[in-house]
Amino acid sequence: MQFAERLNNVETSAIRELFKLLGKPGIVSFAGGFPDAALFDVEGMKAAAQAALTEEPGAALQYGATEGYQPLREQLAGFMHGKGVADVAADQLIVTTGSQQALDLLGKTMISPGDKVIVEGPTFLATIQCFRLYGAEVISAPVDAQGVQVDVLERLIVEHRPKLVYLIPTFGNPSGATLSLERRKRVLELAAQYQVLVVEDDPYGDLYFDAAPPPSLLALSKDVPGSREWLAHCGSLSKVLSPGLRIGWLIANPELLSRAVMCKQFSDAHTSTFAQATAAQYLKAGHMPAALAKVRKVYAARAQAMMDALRSELGDAVEFTPPAGGLFLWLRLTGEGADAGALAKQAIEQGVAFVPGAPFFSQNPDTATLRLSFATADEARIREGVQRLKRALEAVHA
Amino acid sequence: MQFAERLNNVETSAIRELFKLLGKPGIVSFAGGFPDAALFDVEGMKAAAQAALTEEPGAALQYGATEGYQPLREQLAGFMHGKGVADVAADQLIVTTGSQQALDLLGKTMISPGDKVIVEGPTFLATIQCFRLYGAEVISAPVDAQGVQVDVLERLIVEHRPKLVYLIPTFGNPSGATLSLERRKRVLELAAQYQVLVVEDDPYGDLYFDAAPPPSLLALSKDVPGSREWLAHCGSLSKVLSPGLRIGWLIANPELLSRAVMCKQFSDAHTSTFAQATAAQYLKAGHMPAALAKVRKVYAARAQAMMDALRSELGDAVEFTPPAGGLFLWLRLTGEGADAGALAKQAIEQGVAFVPGAPFFSQNPDTATLRLSFATADEARIREGVQRLKRALEAVHA
Repeated sequence: MQFAERLNNVETSAIRELFKLLGKPGIVSFAGGFPDAALFDVEGMKAAAQAALTEEPGAALQYGATEGYQPLREQLAGFMHGKGVADVAADQLIVTTGSQQALDLLGKTMISPGDKVIVEGPTFLATIQCFRLYGAEVISAPVDAQGVQVDVLERLIVEHRPKLVYLIPTFGNPSGATLSLERRKRVLELAAQYQVLVVEDDPYGDLYFDAAPPPSLLALSKDVPGSREWLAHCGSLSKVLSPGLRIGWLIANPELLSRAVMCKQFSDAHTSTFAQATAAQYLKAGHMPAALAKVRKVYAARAQAMMDALRSELGDAVEFTPPAGGLFLWLRLTGEGADAGALAKQAIEQGVAFVPGAPFFSQNPDTATLRLSFATADEARIREGVQRLKRALEAVHA
Repeated sequence: MQFAERLNNVETSAIRELFKLLGKPGIVSFAGGFPDAALFDVEGMKAAAQAALTEEPGAALQYGATEGYQPLREQLAGFMHGKGVADVAADQLIVTTGSQQALDLLGKTMISPGDKVIVEGPTFLATIQCFRLYGAEVISAPVDAQGVQVDVLERLIVEHRPKLVYLIPTFGNPSGATLSLERRKRVLELAAQYQVLVVEDDPYGDLYFDAAPPPSLLALSKDVPGSREWLAHCGSLSKVLSPGLRIGWLIANPELLSRAVMCKQFSDAHTSTFAQATAAQYLKAGHMPAALAKVRKVYAARAQAMMDALRSELGDAVEFTPPAGGLFLWLRLTGEGADAGALAKQAIEQGVAFVPGAPFFSQNPDTATLRLSFATADEARIREGVQRLKRALEAVHA
């Protein structure tokens, strides 16, 4: 059977192979990109589902508009208002089947085979693969503790004239880094100056530990003339409410949005109205602030526990920038010729799992890096996992 | 803003423009492709949603496997067994976000720009557009009362060497036609002989009026050596339970299925586990046979009412083959130079809506055709609508 040529642009994920090993009993997993299921507001969701099926059963079970279920679009616009984006109306966002679909629609809408796109190095692996399936050449811009390096980004934009620039400015996956306010403004200026679409993926921005992060690129765009037209923003309920709903959203200029809707019509017709109506009821019931306050507190404590354990157990064998939110801690092994891939195999032997950093780079992988999620293990398990990691590191060096 | 070249292959749907007019008060709509929301088993769905969130809240709200939620895959395999496909195991089907996504994944997996595909003329409009977005040239094979004309189909396969052949063999949309048993076997022989993928889209097969239709291509493939490998089958709960769930499935050979899973991973990660767990609970509760018996009876009576009214009101001004199931009646205006597009505009004036047939043809549109759905209006409204249609036809001829 002869498959489409686009499949030649992606390889089977190394991470997938690793995930198959996670079934090992008793393993402490820092490998997932999941929120903790124990934190889900199950009772709130039950009430929301019943309300959806009681108040508008026809709408919740019938076909719906490709753009999204209107009451949910209104709730999501309200949710954005609460995050400092006061000027987005319900009809300026469309509901997507998770933010993964927003990325897919951006790829389908924007990328012709051979087009270039710029992403952070490291970035979300499924974005790299998603864009490659549409034939993109994926260029990597380096990230430091303040997020993407905007001077290098500008040079790459000038050199490659990319179709789009994809960023996770806040609590990046996997970097954990947050783009500084100054750099955010510079990114928006670059978007307007070079007329290049900047995609802001923001699934983690609500998961801050202490202070709120700088305003999103979307919120800041009103202050940078000409930037809003060149900005697309992807939101998601996956990390703050439930991934299982598969509710994301895309905000973009009307021309781009209408094309994304057309592509979505032929991708899945619309996102589950059952899930949309349930999410709308949940948001309407006003549960979100309390749910967010709860997860922020839990994740902050777990991140602290992980950082404390890493410092005391591993000392200067590793380096990292403390994340200020999100789910991830990005670690770099400091030893000469350190190989996180080799460590990952040894770690499984010792009963702890994580994801090596190399696959997160579309170019020039840094093989000394790895991603740890602090979201799903409690503090005692985190300490146990870090002790196992120490033993794995000793075994690799033995 | 410069969009991807693939967007040049599709035009904005003429049907979409028509649908905007449907808001007119008091209109009788035969235009939709929807099941009747009044027939949804709302209480059954409420119970299923509660069961899903009570028994496995973690699974229903968390990320899930791209292939689908295992208990649903097992229920769907059982559902297929009940339809004469005894040899499909749970791991031989993947859950898709409606069968529209199965089509999208087939396009993404199989079609390179410039590839040819063969579809029925007429066929489901969103299939034509979906495949064109992947760069396909869409060839049309004619349909008569017995479904696609297999002799012409063979000639077209030989001439065009298509990447795939897409058929709705049972109660076709929009044709209402059902492929005869003899032709089904011939299609399977062609698949094996020419090693061409045949895609069987089967959303309507359960909606028969009296007797069950011939077995699906999938059920028959066990009797045609070498055909199973070249057959993909798309199923859906949209027409038999609820479109709002967005639950479809794809059955294909392991090589194709694994690539479709890879593409799905970067399209929407997975189908809503919340919707999947709810559907699994609904199927497990055993409600489906009763729900199906109810809708079959209602749709059969409505189809009969529509056919009776057409015969008595319009006589030999129209011709049609009585459908034996499904949602649609495919009408042909017999008058010289008849134009269903002109009639559609006049019909809106008279307070009745339908979809002209021309857009359903990827080539050589028959402008005298139109599609009527009998699914959503009750029998009295159907009679009223047909009377209005008669007045519209008189007005066009006046």
